[in-house]
Amino acid sequence: MRNVIYPGSFDPITNGHLDIIKRTAKIFDKVIVAVVDNPSKNPMFTLKERVELIKGATKDIKNIEIDCFSGLLIDYVKGKNISVMVKGLRAVSDFEYEFQMALMNKKLDENIETLFMTTNSKYSYLSSSLVKEVFRLGGCVNELVPDIVIEEMKKKI
Amino acid sequence: MRNVIYPGSFDPITNGHLDIIKRTAKIFDKVIVAVVDNPSKNPMFTLKERVELIKGATKDIKNIEIDCFSGLLIDYVKGKNISVMVKGLRAVSDFEYEFQMALMNKKLDENIETLFMTTNSKYSYLSSSLVKEVFRLGGCVNELVPDIVIEEMKKKI
Amino acid sequence: MRNVIYPGSFDPITNGHLDIIKRTAKIFDKVIVAVVDNPSKNPMFTLKERVELIKGATKDIKNIEIDCFSGLLIDYVKGKNISVMVKGLRAVSDFEYEFQMALMNKKLDENIETLFMTTNSKYSYLSSSLVKEVFRLGGCVNELVPDIVIEEMKKKI
Amino acid sequence: MRNVIYPGSFDPITNGHLDIIKRTAKIFDKVIVAVVDNPSKNPMFTLKERVELIKGATKDIKNIEIDCFSGLLIDYVKGKNISVMVKGLRAVSDFEYEFQMALMNKKLDENIETLFMTTNSKYSYLSSSLVKEVFRLGGCVNELVPDIVIEEMKKKI
Amino acid sequence: MRNVIYPGSFDPITNGHLDIIKRTAKIFDKVIVAVVDNPSKNPMFTLKERVELIKGATKDIKNIEIDCFSGLLIDYVKGKNISVMVKGLRAVSDFEYEFQMALMNKKLDENIETLFMTTNSKYSYLSSSLVKEVFRLGGCVNELVPDIVIEEMKKKI
Amino acid sequence: MRNVIYPGSFDPITNGHLDIIKRTAKIFDKVIVAVVDNPSKNPMFTLKERVELIKGATKDIKNIEIDCFSGLLIDYVKGKNISVMVKGLRAVSDFEYEFQMALMNKKLDENIETLFMTTNSKYSYLSSSLVKEVFRLGGCVNELVPDIVIEEMKKKI
Repeated sequence: MRNVIYPGSFDPITNGHLDIIKRTAKIFDKVIVAVVDNPSKNPMFTLKERVELIKGATKDIKNIEIDCFSGLLIDYVKGKNISVMVKGLRAVSDFEYEFQMALMNKKLDENIETLFMTTNSKYSYLSSSLVKEVFRLGGCVNELVPDIVIEEMKKKI
Repeated sequence: MRNVIYPGSFDPITNGHLDIIKRTAKIFDKVIVAVVDNPSKNPMFTLKERVELIKGATKDIKNIEIDCFSGLLIDYVKGKNISVMVKGLRAVSDFEYEFQMALMNKKLDENIETLFMTTNSKYSYLSSSLVKEVFRLGGCVNELVPDIVIEEMKKKI
Repeated sequence: MRNVIYPGSFDPITNGHLDIIKRTAKIFDKVIVAVVDNPSKNPMFTLKERVELIKGATKDIKNIEIDCFSGLLIDYVKGKNISVMVKGLRAVSDFEYEFQMALMNKKLDENIETLFMTTNSKYSYLSSSLVKEVFRLGGCVNELVPDIVIEEMKKKI
Repeated sequence: MRNVIYPGSFDPITNGHLDIIKRTAKIFDKVIVAVVDNPSKNPMFTLKERVELIKGATKDIKNIEIDCFSGLLIDYVKGKNISVMVKGLRAVSDFEYEFQMALMNKKLDENIETLFMTTNSKYSYLSSSLVKEVFRLGGCVNELVPDIVIEEMKKKI
Repeated sequence: MRNVIYPGSFDPITNGHLDIIKRTAKIFDKVIVAVVDNPSKNPMFTLKERVELIKGATKDIKNIEIDCFSGLLIDYVKGKNISVMVKGLRAVSDFEYEFQMALMNKKLDENIETLFMTTNSKYSYLSSSLVKEVFRLGGCVNELVPDIVIEEMKKKI
Repeated sequence: MRNVIYPGSFDPITNGHLDIIKRTAKIFDKVIVAVVDNPSKNPMFTLKERVELIKGATKDIKNIEIDCFSGLLIDYVKGKNISVMVKGLRAVSDFEYEFQMALMNKKLDENIETLFMTTNSKYSYLSSSLVKEVFRLGGCVNELVPDIVIEEMKKKI
């Protein structure tokens, strides 16, 4: 069994995340989407809501599990007996940040690997925070997030 | 008529902004400098003050209009019946951020284009926030902002 | 009249170039596509062939002129009595090179401006040299270059 | 069976490559190291020699296969009935180039994925060409390449 | 006498800082480690504590002086009658920020130079803020900061 | 005595190089400008001519020595009993290349340090190869290279 963890805030899940999840699910036996509980970040959606949105958006994917965690990511990964994480990369700025994290995680536990995938070029500009900003200002975010996310964002504003 | 919009916070206008405005005014029939009203950013100058400072600094430029807007930039641009925006680029970090914005704006309305100009190399390190930080700590910002801005910054501190 | 020059090697023209040409043609009165005659670069297509391919690929665009030049780009631009060039940017590496060129050209003649556009994200990975390499190795380059280019590439190999 | 391909020139294999191979071999069922036959690049070692050096350096790794290919990488990968490639990333310049390749390969066949790993930070500056340059100028490349490579490099000079 | 200033927040000092200090101390007659008093940044350690931690971590270095300052760095440097500052660079993002600062400082006083050193590659991912984040979440930061820092961090949490 | 080496091809010396030399000469007791003899690079000026041009351009600087070397830079530096090299940085692409070299040199001899300086922003776009290209195409390179270099370039073409 080759299981991998795809960690993130997912506040909310975007079509860029969904693209990474679908492609990862084809490569590995199971993808565990792990939503971080980071209270200091003042999210738009609660942890529970974020988990529900991912569930709604990924219900056609069989080999997926949605989970959440708090504390150090590397401890969560070890606790799951998993040794591979997957991250999407959109641009150079992503790359530098994710590289720093991957090297730090390697220092914390050298048996845990991070694999990176290129984001589909049509989502290269997409981030959860940009989606929220555009939505709050009245812009249309169809095609950028799953429909279920749009419905829930409307309720929030 | 080829009119373009040069959007920004301009808190306050710097000589780097002024350089972009002057060069844009030579290329297009009219430059509309559009100051964003972003209350969450806690600016040094009010929207009205920022508009006045730009007016004072650009009074020798004929084909200019100073305006302000709130909400989504792309909606403002469409409302003005304009299809071109201009942005200055100083460095790689600017480039990545502005690229993301340009691609998102293209998604929101594919008829609106963003054109980029290189900032004059002598202003490559200049930003409104760095000017404010240096000024607050007692540094000299002559040659970095128009004289009128220095006078008004003195009143604020 | 606001005419601009879009310079390049165009060996051969790609759909990324075509995207920049079409968008530029909407913003300015006329786009002059200027093909550089650079004998040292050992091109796949002769200067004449490159010009013909651009003509074939852009025949639906009214406000376009195809030209070629040798020598210093800035001298060619001045000789045309034009003060604006347009370039496409795909990635950070493009950005650094084009910035260097734009600043050097500004030093050579401060009245000539370079405007940059973002390449459509679906062509962000596309370059003439990559297209040629893929084609030579037997890969399919449909959707990457105009059909007319594919026909002519087949004759070359 | 989750098999992956790790393609490259390997002229010669370095300890940075070896680090990627070992870590990949822990994640997947089999790693196929695929040496490209690129006659135009004027390599230090022949294709056969490069394959032998990799064999010598990886003999303790069980789930590995050394192979070589010419032509388009994506065709080779498809011919092997494999859908995942692995690449190492050292720095931003790697990132931009590899991203372009990954997106082009996705265009050529959307079922084939490229996964990236961070190079161990102690090899972040290491490349085959830099090793060769240092060696030719008389520098010591111990700890940078496997011992077997040093012996063979000595015979070449 | 060639004295240099190594400025920073040092909240807390890391092994990456220590590496830069030791290497700088070999090149110049004296290194003045200058801790900035920046109340707005909400540090983990007070200015006094940060100075004490640096003292503890550097007691084997003879030609060192630990100092602190508030206000504009360039004014502090001039006040010390020193004309050279040293900074460590880890990655491209550091580079862009530090370049902006170096050019601004050159504008504020053209006699003051900033020299950059590469951070040891084994600390390329290390920053004070990342160390604090990992520590707060229960991760082990041995080998990343001096032992004395770990003891004091434990008292804070 | 704090002596440093400033190595390079200097084919030919530019005003950007001269700016680095002058600033380095203020910081250290002596600057040794070391011209690399790299026959494979097909230079415009011979090693002897490059040395003469640097001598001509720097005759007002007292604490300077012009030298040349072949082979491995680090061996030359050690042979001079010097432990510090200086390099100029213009842009991110420089940074990545120079970082790789600095880390490799640190591996080859950990006692030898590389210090980096920011190039004056008005020379940020300047390189020897760009100067030669512009000159060959008939462009004016005044203010980009010392006058003595222009005279000698005229003789070459």
